[in-house]
Amino acid sequence: MKYGIVIFPSKKLQDIANSYRKRYDPHYALIPPHITLKNTFEASDHEIVDITRELAAVAKQVDSFKLNVLKVSSFSPVNNVIYLKVDPNEELQTLHNALHSGYFAGEPEYAFVPHITIGQKLSSDEHSDVYGQLRMLKVDHEEQIDRFHLLYQLENGSWTVYETFRLGKEN
Amino acid sequence: MKYGIVIFPSKKLQDIANSYRKRYDPHYALIPPHITLKNTFEASDHEIVDITRELAAVAKQVDSFKLNVLKVSSFSPVNNVIYLKVDPNEELQTLHNALHSGYFAGEPEYAFVPHITIGQKLSSDEHSDVYGQLRMLKVDHEEQIDRFHLLYQLENGSWTVYETFRLGKEN
Repeated sequence: MKYGIVIFPSKKLQDIANSYRKRYDPHYALIPPHITLKNTFEASDHEIVDITRELAAVAKQVDSFKLNVLKVSSFSPVNNVIYLKVDPNEELQTLHNALHSGYFAGEPEYAFVPHITIGQKLSSDEHSDVYGQLRMLKVDHEEQIDRFHLLYQLENGSWTVYETFRLGKEN
Repeated sequence: MKYGIVIFPSKKLQDIANSYRKRYDPHYALIPPHITLKNTFEASDHEIVDITRELAAVAKQVDSFKLNVLKVSSFSPVNNVIYLKVDPNEELQTLHNALHSGYFAGEPEYAFVPHITIGQKLSSDEHSDVYGQLRMLKVDHEEQIDRFHLLYQLENGSWTVYETFRLGKEN
Protein backbone atom coordinates (compact mmCIF):
# COMPACT_ATOMS: atom_id res chain seq x y z
CA MET A 1 0.00 0.00 0.00
CA LYS A 2 1.18 3.56 -0.64
CA TYR A 3 1.65 5.81 2.37
CA GLY A 4 2.64 9.42 2.91
CA ILE A 5 3.26 11.70 5.91
CA VAL A 6 1.90 15.24 6.02
CA ILE A 7 0.92 18.17 8.19
CA PHE A 8 -2.53 19.64 7.62
CA PRO A 9 -2.44 23.36 8.49
CA SER A 10 -5.43 25.09 10.13
CA LYS A 11 -8.82 25.27 8.43
CA LYS A 12 -8.16 28.98 7.80
CA LEU A 13 -4.98 28.30 5.81
CA GLN A 14 -6.55 25.27 4.06
CA ASP A 15 -9.48 27.44 2.92
CA ILE A 16 -7.05 30.05 1.53
CA ALA A 17 -4.99 27.38 -0.25
CA ASN A 18 -8.13 25.74 -1.67
CA SER A 19 -9.34 29.02 -3.17
CA TYR A 20 -6.31 28.76 -5.51
CA ARG A 21 -6.06 24.96 -5.74
CA LYS A 22 -9.63 24.82 -7.02
CA ARG A 23 -8.45 26.51 -10.20
CA TYR A 24 -4.78 25.62 -10.43
CA ASP A 25 -4.20 22.20 -8.81
CA PRO A 26 -5.58 18.99 -10.35
CA HIS A 27 -4.97 17.26 -6.96
CA TYR A 28 -7.57 19.55 -5.38
CA ALA A 29 -10.11 16.74 -4.86
CA LEU A 30 -7.58 14.05 -3.87
CA ILE A 31 -6.17 15.47 -0.62
CA PRO A 32 -6.69 18.56 1.57
CA PRO A 33 -3.99 21.28 1.49
CA HIS A 34 -0.91 19.96 3.26
CA ILE A 35 2.83 20.20 3.96
CA THR A 36 4.52 16.97 2.88
CA LEU A 37 6.99 15.64 5.45
CA LYS A 38 7.67 12.38 3.63
CA ASN A 39 6.78 11.59 0.04
CA THR A 40 4.83 8.53 -1.07
CA PHE A 41 6.40 5.24 0.03
CA GLU A 42 5.35 1.59 -0.15
CA ALA A 43 4.75 -0.42 3.02
CA SER A 44 3.11 -3.76 3.78
CA ASP A 45 0.41 -4.28 6.42
CA HIS A 46 3.14 -5.82 8.55
CA GLU A 47 5.64 -2.97 8.11
CA ILE A 48 3.04 -0.35 8.92
CA VAL A 49 2.79 -1.67 12.49
CA ASP A 50 6.49 -0.88 13.02
CA ILE A 51 6.17 2.39 11.14
CA THR A 52 3.38 3.71 13.36
CA ARG A 53 5.46 2.81 16.43
CA GLU A 54 8.43 4.73 14.97
CA LEU A 55 6.24 7.70 14.10
CA ALA A 56 4.93 7.88 17.66
CA ALA A 57 8.58 8.06 18.82
CA VAL A 58 9.41 10.76 16.23
CA ALA A 59 6.41 12.83 17.36
CA LYS A 60 7.73 12.84 20.93
CA GLN A 61 11.04 14.36 19.78
CA VAL A 62 9.49 17.63 18.62
CA ASP A 63 7.28 20.04 20.54
CA SER A 64 4.38 21.90 18.99
CA PHE A 65 5.70 24.88 17.03
CA LYS A 66 4.81 28.10 15.20
CA LEU A 67 4.41 27.90 11.45
CA ASN A 68 4.75 31.04 9.32
CA VAL A 69 3.67 31.62 5.74
CA LEU A 70 4.88 34.87 4.24
CA LYS A 71 4.72 34.57 0.46
CA VAL A 72 3.86 32.70 -2.69
CA SER A 73 6.77 31.08 -4.51
CA SER A 74 7.44 28.62 -7.35
CA PHE A 75 9.73 25.65 -8.07
CA SER A 76 10.05 26.81 -11.69
CA PRO A 77 12.08 26.13 -13.80
CA VAL A 78 12.58 22.71 -12.11
CA ASN A 79 8.85 22.19 -11.73
CA ASN A 80 5.85 24.34 -12.60
CA VAL A 81 4.62 24.14 -9.02
CA ILE A 82 3.31 27.26 -7.26
CA TYR A 83 3.16 27.15 -3.48
CA LEU A 84 2.67 28.98 -0.22
CA LYS A 85 6.21 29.20 1.12
CA VAL A 86 6.45 27.95 4.69
CA ASP A 87 9.25 29.59 6.67
CA PRO A 88 11.80 26.88 7.43
CA ASN A 89 12.30 26.25 11.14
CA GLU A 90 14.14 23.84 13.37
CA GLU A 91 11.11 21.70 14.20
CA LEU A 92 10.15 21.10 10.56
CA GLN A 93 13.75 20.25 9.70
CA THR A 94 14.00 17.88 12.68
CA LEU A 95 10.80 16.10 11.63
CA HIS A 96 11.98 15.83 8.04
CA ASN A 97 15.38 14.49 9.11
CA ALA A 98 13.83 11.96 11.49
CA LEU A 99 11.58 10.71 8.67
CA HIS A 100 14.59 10.17 6.36
CA SER A 101 17.09 8.58 8.77
CA GLY A 102 17.28 5.68 11.24
CA TYR A 103 14.29 3.44 10.59
CA PHE A 104 13.31 5.67 7.66
CA ALA A 105 16.81 5.93 6.13
CA GLY A 106 16.95 6.82 2.44
CA GLU A 107 17.74 9.91 0.48
CA PRO A 108 14.85 12.35 0.11
CA GLU A 109 14.08 13.11 -3.54
CA TYR A 110 14.72 16.83 -3.12
CA ALA A 111 16.20 19.14 -0.50
CA PHE A 112 13.43 19.93 1.99
CA VAL A 113 11.60 23.12 1.10
CA PRO A 114 8.50 23.13 3.32
CA HIS A 115 5.53 24.31 1.27
CA ILE A 116 1.81 24.08 0.59
CA THR A 117 1.17 23.49 -3.11
CA ILE A 118 -1.54 25.72 -4.60
CA GLY A 119 -0.87 25.13 -8.31
CA GLN A 120 0.73 22.31 -10.31
CA LYS A 121 0.75 20.56 -13.71
CA LEU A 122 0.45 23.96 -15.35
CA SER A 123 1.80 24.59 -18.84
CA SER A 124 4.70 27.04 -18.96
CA ASP A 125 2.41 29.78 -20.23
CA GLU A 126 -0.21 29.11 -17.55
CA HIS A 127 2.51 29.01 -14.91
CA SER A 128 3.95 32.38 -15.97
CA ASP A 129 0.52 33.94 -16.04
CA VAL A 130 -0.72 32.55 -12.72
CA TYR A 131 2.55 32.97 -10.87
CA GLY A 132 2.83 36.52 -12.19
CA GLN A 133 -0.43 37.31 -10.39
CA LEU A 134 0.00 35.24 -7.22
CA ARG A 135 3.59 36.29 -6.44
CA MET A 136 2.23 39.80 -5.76
CA LEU A 137 -0.02 38.51 -2.97
CA LYS A 138 0.83 39.62 0.52
CA VAL A 139 0.59 36.67 2.88
CA ASP A 140 1.21 37.07 6.58
CA HIS A 141 -0.02 34.01 8.37
CA GLU A 142 1.10 32.43 11.63
CA GLU A 143 -0.32 29.39 13.38
CA GLN A 144 0.56 26.64 15.83
CA ILE A 145 1.27 23.09 14.56
CA ASP A 146 0.78 20.28 17.07
CA ARG A 147 0.36 17.11 14.99
CA PHE A 148 1.12 15.26 11.78
CA HIS A 149 -0.71 12.49 9.92
CA LEU A 150 0.06 9.16 8.27
CA LEU A 151 -2.08 8.67 5.14
CA TYR A 152 -2.62 5.92 2.60
CA GLN A 153 -3.64 6.22 -1.01
CA LEU A 154 -6.74 4.64 -2.56
CA GLU A 155 -6.88 3.27 -6.10
CA ASN A 156 -8.53 6.46 -7.37
CA GLY A 157 -5.51 8.50 -6.22
CA SER A 158 -7.21 10.06 -3.17
CA TRP A 159 -5.78 9.85 0.35
CA THR A 160 -7.33 8.61 3.60
CA VAL A 161 -5.84 9.35 7.03
CA TYR A 162 -4.62 6.26 8.84
CA GLU A 163 -3.40 7.86 12.03
CA THR A 164 -2.66 11.15 13.78
CA PHE A 165 0.49 11.77 15.82
CA ARG A 166 0.48 14.61 18.34
CA LEU A 167 3.77 16.39 18.85
CA GLY A 168 5.46 16.60 22.24
CA LYS A 169 6.47 14.43 25.14
CA GLU A 170 3.10 14.47 26.90
CA ASN A 171 1.26 12.51 24.23
CA MET B 1 -16.34 24.93 12.96
CA LYS B 2 -18.24 21.87 11.73
CA TYR B 3 -17.07 18.48 12.95
CA GLY B 4 -18.11 14.88 12.32
CA ILE B 5 -17.08 11.45 13.62
CA VAL B 6 -16.58 8.51 11.26
CA ILE B 7 -14.96 5.13 10.74
CA PHE B 8 -12.93 4.67 7.56
CA PRO B 9 -13.08 1.01 6.53
CA SER B 10 -10.08 -0.74 4.94
CA LYS B 11 -8.58 0.41 1.65
CA LYS B 12 -10.11 -2.67 0.01
CA LEU B 13 -13.66 -1.73 1.03
CA GLN B 14 -13.07 1.97 0.27
CA ASP B 15 -11.92 1.05 -3.26
CA ILE B 16 -15.08 -1.04 -3.78
CA ALA B 17 -17.31 1.75 -2.45
CA ASN B 18 -15.54 4.36 -4.60
CA SER B 19 -16.12 2.33 -7.77
CA TYR B 20 -19.84 3.09 -7.26
CA ARG B 21 -19.54 6.49 -5.56
CA LYS B 22 -17.61 7.80 -8.57
CA ARG B 23 -20.78 7.51 -10.61
CA TYR B 24 -23.58 7.77 -8.06
CA ASP B 25 -22.42 9.96 -5.15
CA PRO B 26 -21.79 13.70 -5.58
CA HIS B 27 -19.84 13.64 -2.27
CA TYR B 28 -17.26 11.35 -3.90
CA ALA B 29 -14.53 14.02 -3.90
CA LEU B 30 -15.38 15.53 -0.50
CA ILE B 31 -14.65 12.60 1.85
CA PRO B 32 -13.40 9.01 1.56
CA PRO B 33 -15.96 6.20 1.99
CA HIS B 34 -16.97 6.04 5.66
CA ILE B 35 -19.40 4.90 8.33
CA THR B 36 -20.83 7.93 10.14
CA LEU B 37 -20.87 7.54 13.93
CA LYS B 38 -21.97 11.12 14.62
CA ASN B 39 -23.41 13.54 12.11
CA THR B 40 -22.11 17.06 11.54
CA PHE B 41 -22.06 19.20 14.68
CA GLU B 42 -20.76 22.67 15.52
CA ALA B 43 -17.98 23.15 18.06
CA SER B 44 -15.69 26.04 18.99
CA ASP B 45 -11.89 25.78 19.22
CA HIS B 46 -12.37 25.74 22.99
CA GLU B 47 -15.02 23.00 23.00
CA ILE B 48 -12.99 20.77 20.73
CA VAL B 49 -10.34 20.40 23.44
CA ASP B 50 -12.95 18.85 25.75
CA ILE B 51 -14.44 16.84 22.90
CA THR B 52 -11.13 15.18 21.99
CA ARG B 53 -10.65 14.27 25.67
CA GLU B 54 -14.14 12.72 25.76
CA LEU B 55 -13.52 10.85 22.49
CA ALA B 56 -10.33 9.33 23.88
CA ALA B 57 -12.41 8.06 26.84
CA VAL B 58 -15.12 6.68 24.51
CA ALA B 59 -12.47 4.86 22.43
CA LYS B 60 -11.23 3.06 25.53
CA GLN B 61 -14.74 1.67 26.21
CA VAL B 62 -14.82 -0.43 23.05
CA ASP B 63 -12.34 -3.03 21.83
CA SER B 64 -11.42 -3.50 18.20
CA PHE B 65 -14.17 -5.48 16.44
CA LYS B 66 -15.18 -7.36 13.29
CA LEU B 67 -17.20 -5.47 10.72
CA ASN B 68 -19.33 -7.34 8.19
CA VAL B 69 -20.85 -6.08 4.97
CA LEU B 70 -23.27 -8.49 3.32
CA LYS B 71 -25.46 -6.54 0.91
CA VAL B 72 -26.47 -3.33 -0.79
CA SER B 73 -29.54 -1.59 0.59
CA SER B 74 -31.43 1.71 0.27
CA PHE B 75 -33.12 4.24 2.57
CA SER B 76 -35.82 4.78 -0.06
CA PRO B 77 -38.59 5.97 0.17
CA VAL B 78 -37.32 8.15 3.07
CA ASN B 79 -34.14 9.07 1.19
CA ASN B 80 -32.81 8.05 -2.21
CA VAL B 81 -29.60 6.85 -0.58
CA ILE B 82 -28.02 3.56 -1.67
CA TYR B 83 -25.51 2.01 0.71
CA LEU B 84 -23.40 -0.97 1.68
CA LYS B 85 -25.27 -2.34 4.66
CA VAL B 86 -23.01 -2.86 7.66
CA ASP B 87 -24.16 -5.65 9.96
CA PRO B 88 -25.16 -4.01 13.25
CA ASN B 89 -23.11 -5.19 16.22
CA GLU B 90 -22.69 -4.37 19.87
CA GLU B 91 -19.51 -2.33 19.44
CA LEU B 92 -20.97 -0.04 16.77
CA GLN B 93 -24.10 0.48 18.85
CA THR B 94 -22.02 1.21 21.97
CA LEU B 95 -19.94 3.78 20.06
CA HIS B 96 -23.06 5.41 18.62
CA ASN B 97 -24.75 5.53 22.04
CA ALA B 98 -21.64 6.98 23.71
CA LEU B 99 -21.50 9.71 21.04
CA HIS B 100 -25.13 10.69 21.69
CA SER B 101 -25.26 10.61 25.51
CA GLY B 102 -23.38 12.04 28.49
CA TYR B 103 -21.13 14.83 27.19
CA PHE B 104 -22.59 14.31 23.70
CA ALA B 105 -26.26 14.15 24.81
CA GLY B 106 -28.84 14.98 22.13
CA GLU B 107 -31.18 12.97 20.01
CA PRO B 108 -29.64 11.48 16.88
CA GLU B 109 -31.49 12.56 13.75
CA TYR B 110 -32.32 8.99 12.77
CA ALA B 111 -32.20 5.53 14.34
CA PHE B 112 -28.66 4.22 13.86
CA VAL B 113 -28.36 2.11 10.72
CA PRO B 114 -24.62 1.64 10.19
CA HIS B 115 -23.84 2.00 6.50
CA ILE B 116 -21.40 3.15 3.82
CA THR B 117 -23.13 5.41 1.31
CA ILE B 118 -22.39 4.54 -2.33
CA GLY B 119 -25.12 6.60 -4.03
CA GLN B 120 -27.12 9.69 -3.07
CA LYS B 121 -28.98 12.74 -4.43
CA LEU B 122 -30.37 10.53 -7.18
CA SER B 123 -33.70 11.29 -8.85
CA SER B 124 -36.39 8.67 -8.17
CA ASP B 125 -35.91 7.22 -11.65
CA GLU B 126 -32.13 7.06 -11.30
CA HIS B 127 -32.51 5.54 -7.85
CA SER B 128 -34.84 2.77 -9.09
CA ASP B 129 -32.55 2.03 -11.99
CA VAL B 130 -29.27 2.00 -10.05
CA TYR B 131 -30.67 0.25 -6.98
CA GLY B 132 -32.31 -2.35 -9.21
CA GLN B 133 -28.84 -3.30 -10.46
CA LEU B 134 -26.83 -2.93 -7.25
CA ARG B 135 -29.24 -4.81 -4.96
CA MET B 136 -28.37 -7.98 -6.91
CA LEU B 137 -24.69 -7.68 -5.96
CA LYS B 138 -23.32 -10.36 -3.71
CA VAL B 139 -21.18 -8.76 -1.03
CA ASP B 140 -19.39 -10.86 1.55
CA HIS B 141 -16.80 -8.73 3.28
CA GLU B 142 -15.33 -8.97 6.77
CA GLU B 143 -12.64 -6.83 8.33
CA GLN B 144 -11.30 -5.63 11.68
CA ILE B 145 -12.06 -2.07 12.88
CA ASP B 146 -9.63 -0.62 15.42
CA ARG B 147 -10.07 3.16 15.22
CA PHE B 148 -12.36 6.09 14.46
CA HIS B 149 -11.67 9.65 13.35
CA LEU B 150 -12.73 13.18 14.25
CA LEU B 151 -12.99 15.36 11.11
CA TYR B 152 -13.71 19.01 10.37
CA GLN B 153 -15.26 20.51 7.27
CA LEU B 154 -13.60 23.10 5.04
CA GLU B 155 -15.49 25.90 3.29
CA ASN B 156 -15.57 23.94 0.02
CA GLY B 157 -17.48 21.13 1.76
CA SER B 158 -14.55 18.69 1.95
CA TRP B 159 -13.40 17.07 5.20
CA THR B 160 -9.97 16.98 6.86
CA VAL B 161 -9.06 14.55 9.66
CA TYR B 162 -8.33 16.28 12.96
CA GLU B 163 -7.52 13.25 15.07
CA THR B 164 -7.55 9.45 15.18
CA PHE B 165 -8.76 7.48 18.18
CA ARG B 166 -7.64 3.87 18.55
CA LEU B 167 -10.12 1.52 20.16
CA GLY B 168 -9.30 -0.44 23.30
CA LYS B 169 -7.90 0.03 26.75
CA GLU B 170 -4.22 -0.20 25.76
CA ASN B 171 -4.15 3.04 23.78
